Formats: sequence, C-alpha cells, structure tokens
Amino acid sequence: MSNQETTANFTTAEMEETIARISSHKGVEGVMIMNREACRCHHSIDLDEDKAKTHSAALSELTAKASHIVGLLNRDDELTFLRIRSKQREIMVSPDKGFILVVLQNPNVSEE
Amino acid sequence: MSNQETTANFTTAEMEETIARISSHKGVEGVMIMNREACRCHHSIDLDEDKAKTHSAALSELTAKASHIVGLLNRDDELTFLRIRSKQREIMVSPDKGFILVVLQNPNVSEE
Repeated sequence: MSNQETTANFTTAEMEETIARISSHKGVEGVMIMNREACRCHHSIDLDEDKAKTHSAALSELTAKASHIVGLLNRDDELTFLRIRSKQREIMVSPDKGFILVVLQNPNVSEE
Repeated sequence: MSNQETTANFTTAEMEETIARISSHKGVEGVMIMNREACRCHHSIDLDEDKAKTHSAALSELTAKASHIVGLLNRDDELTFLRIRSKQREIMVSPDKGFILVVLQNPNVSEE
C-alpha cells in the first residue's frame, strides 16, 4: 500500500504516526484506525490479519448500530464517542466522517 | 402484569421504584429496564409502546454485540458498562445477568 493510499483523507504515514503517538501513552494496549466499512484497517494490536479483519468488522458494525440508536432518539443528533468497559479493559471508539479510531486501554494503569 | 411478574428476579414494583429513583437525578431524561432479550421493558421515556419496543430491541442488540467484541479480545472477559455519547445526550447501558438498565442523560446538566 503506497504512502499516498488514504483512509478517508489519512495517508498511511499519517495513520502510522497517529497509531505510534497514541500507543506511546501508558496503559494503551492497542490502536486501530479503519474506514467506516472496516475494509481498510491499520492497527498496532497483536492480531493476525484474519482476526484484525474480524475485530474491525465487529467494531464497525457496533459503531453503525450505536449511530442508529442515537438517530432513533433524535434524527438531528450524532454519535460522537463510544466507550465499552469490561472487567479487564476499556475500548474507546471515536467515529469520524470517513474513519473510526479505536483505542484499547487497561484502565487500571494510571498515566502518571 | 401482576406485581409479582419479574424481569430476571426484579418485581414490577422494584423496577418502577428503581426507575423513579434514577429519574429523580438532575439531567436524567429517561430510564429503561429490560430483560436481555428486550421482550419485557419498563421505561420512563416519552415513547409509545411500538417505539419503546424498537428502542429496547436495538439497545439489546447493541449490548449483545459489545459483549461479543469483548469476548473476541479475551474469552474470559465480560462487558460491564457501555457509554454512548452523542452531540445532545449520553446513553448509559449497564448490563446485568438477566436484565439491562439504560439511562438517557443530558450531560450538560450538572448534578449540583
């Protein structure tokens, strides 16, 4: 994939740089950037390509479903953030126009 | 529905009391308690029954999908909370064994 290939106006180099920057924060276990349909995905998570596809597809569907629910309550409203908390980690999903940013974090590791 | 009818060990009276208590908090726009399959739902939201069914089914599906994603990353992990933030409100979903508690809140109204 050439550097100029973009995921919704994001070059590969920009995505890699964003992933590296976020991954450097303490407690961050992994970062994923994908287009809304999840057919193109960059990530820093220890996953093989098949699993990365499965995970990004599931996250893309979850984001679409959350957007749908927000729209059910008020057509003019718009999803801005999704936080999935489990016993072991926190998954933060930040949807933008053309892409979705996902950060996996261990909430028990503080930033100090 | 008799008082003794339960949604996963919750009598109707207990559900109504929980809904009234949470609804009394400033900024809370509505509360929903449903069983995991969303076929039984109590709520304090200004919705007709059809819409209540549509919303509870969508929220139930979203919760199931979020649980699935948590399990994809680690089979031993378990979804504990889901926070959907939009421009106008915040939807908080607290899944328990037999039921799901949903609170709609206006995040711009502070509790003081």
